[in-house]
Amino acid sequence: MARKIVGVMGPASPGDWEETAYRLGLLIGSLGYVLLTGGRGEGVMDAASRGAKESGGLVVGILPGANTDQCSQYVDIAIPSGMGSARNNINILASDIVVAVGMGAGTASEISLALKASKKVVLVDSSPEAIAFFKTIGEKHIYVASDADDACNYIKSHFEGTV
Amino acid sequence: MARKIVGVMGPASPGDWEETAYRLGLLIGSLGYVLLTGGRGEGVMDAASRGAKESGGLVVGILPGANTDQCSQYVDIAIPSGMGSARNNINILASDIVVAVGMGAGTASEISLALKASKKVVLVDSSPEAIAFFKTIGEKHIYVASDADDACNYIKSHFEGTV
Amino acid sequence: MARKIVGVMGPASPGDWEETAYRLGLLIGSLGYVLLTGGRGEGVMDAASRGAKESGGLVVGILPGANTDQCSQYVDIAIPSGMGSARNNINILASDIVVAVGMGAGTASEISLALKASKKVVLVDSSPEAIAFFKTIGEKHIYVASDADDACNYIKSHFEGTV
Amino acid sequence: MARKIVGVMGPASPGDWEETAYRLGLLIGSLGYVLLTGGRGEGVMDAASRGAKESGGLVVGILPGANTDQCSQYVDIAIPSGMGSARNNINILASDIVVAVGMGAGTASEISLALKASKKVVLVDSSPEAIAFFKTIGEKHIYVASDADDACNYIKSHFEGTV
Repeated sequence: MARKIVGVMGPASPGDWEETAYRLGLLIGSLGYVLLTGGRGEGVMDAASRGAKESGGLVVGILPGANTDQCSQYVDIAIPSGMGSARNNINILASDIVVAVGMGAGTASEISLALKASKKVVLVDSSPEAIAFFKTIGEKHIYVASDADDACNYIKSHFEGTV
Repeated sequence: MARKIVGVMGPASPGDWEETAYRLGLLIGSLGYVLLTGGRGEGVMDAASRGAKESGGLVVGILPGANTDQCSQYVDIAIPSGMGSARNNINILASDIVVAVGMGAGTASEISLALKASKKVVLVDSSPEAIAFFKTIGEKHIYVASDADDACNYIKSHFEGTV
Repeated sequence: MARKIVGVMGPASPGDWEETAYRLGLLIGSLGYVLLTGGRGEGVMDAASRGAKESGGLVVGILPGANTDQCSQYVDIAIPSGMGSARNNINILASDIVVAVGMGAGTASEISLALKASKKVVLVDSSPEAIAFFKTIGEKHIYVASDADDACNYIKSHFEGTV
Repeated sequence: MARKIVGVMGPASPGDWEETAYRLGLLIGSLGYVLLTGGRGEGVMDAASRGAKESGGLVVGILPGANTDQCSQYVDIAIPSGMGSARNNINILASDIVVAVGMGAGTASEISLALKASKKVVLVDSSPEAIAFFKTIGEKHIYVASDADDACNYIKSHFEGTV
């Protein structure tokens, strides 16, 4: 039986979202879920991976490149896809639930692809514009979390079938 | 020298956007540009393809499936990708400029991937929420068109290097 | 109704196969079929494209890269896939019949993927080892052609339903 | 630091190769390497995964479908790619070394893509025709193993840098 996978998506650029991503990774690892990210050693991907590793979790990284050159040092299972941004769809298909921390063009594509695939999406540190927009295209699949702890409580309830 | 390609993206579901898409296809074909869509015989993809065919244009369809079963009858060059929604990234990479008509989760992923790839995106028949959001992640790459004719004037200026 | 597409695959490196590929492109273009290649301006891809252009044919190139930098000057419709060698599967799915000219690792992957997808494969300028091997995994889908003209006669018969 | 990954490729159909694949999985798991397969619950993929699980190993499956419906029960980390046979290239890029057990069109595409990517390939239970052919396109990257134990000794030497 395959393990439950939580996908954490977010910008590669530095920002306050890294703090949230780190905390999310920590909680996801503690709960025994596998963390999946876009694999790179930057921004949300790296911070979430670091958190999950610190709490003893397992980290999977689906990289855009054809090798592991850009891989976060906190990734256990590195999957170079060689597909660039087309790998964003694999990030989504491989995640049982998706958390988007912060926002950017890549992250927006992942939220959109998740809604297209009818996956639950948790938004944290999103702008009012992002929340308003994504509700217009997939309201019933979206949960807006106030912070990493709230996001993780929702994820737990999701896997336990209570939301 | 490869021909100039205009990608027209939009929902597969029926809607007012089909009228706009048809008109866009008609104009794109008249101007001698190649029309590229997601290839299916529904919604914006089919309507734009029909328009382009009527004006003597060439239509390329990048299909999500592994065969041509869902292909629009107006497509000249059918490219089954076998990749599902991951083909959205090819739609973008293959387009010299992208027009999004209407909105949905798939279309939102294509706009996002286009902004990620620094392509120009023309929005037509978009909601205020969509316009407000996409401006937060890629304002300088976005043109909001009032209708199909306005969109096509912008495309023409884009290829002539006057915008 | 989408046009018939003949995929011509083969090494990017220089070799005698370029002569065969050029002649194949010439014949495919004359017969009114669309030529599809891996799009690059080298080896079999470039030579076949040049031949098809000279006979007034239409040439589609599915490129491994995310842009048209490596594109053959004889390609009309350039489709950058951004997927590296994973685009080999699209080359196959988009071709109604596949011709392999010469041999190399990339070409071998395309023949294999074609057999996997139950497409007809015509081998030209193949080694005895290649012919012997591919017959063990897909004999009934393979035609070994003596030269470009023989290959094209087979393709014509294939589309006319007489083989 | 990402863990070492051994990719085991082979037919989904039943055959003697399943015995070899099971033994390979068992040894790969014992040695502490991650096993990667095409993820399905059939043939070589399933047998290798079962072996690795029995020896306490970690199993990653890169599935062709968009969900986990076809997943082997012995897979720990299921990655649905939604890309059909194009996922074969990810199987290769994600493997530090590739073992092909038995032969078929899909397996042949994976060996070819591995040689294209300059990865080491170990052939077990291959036909004389397969061995002769693959040597013509990538001799220095190929090791022909006599059985699962011989293959695993080679893999071990590969990771220890002694071959």
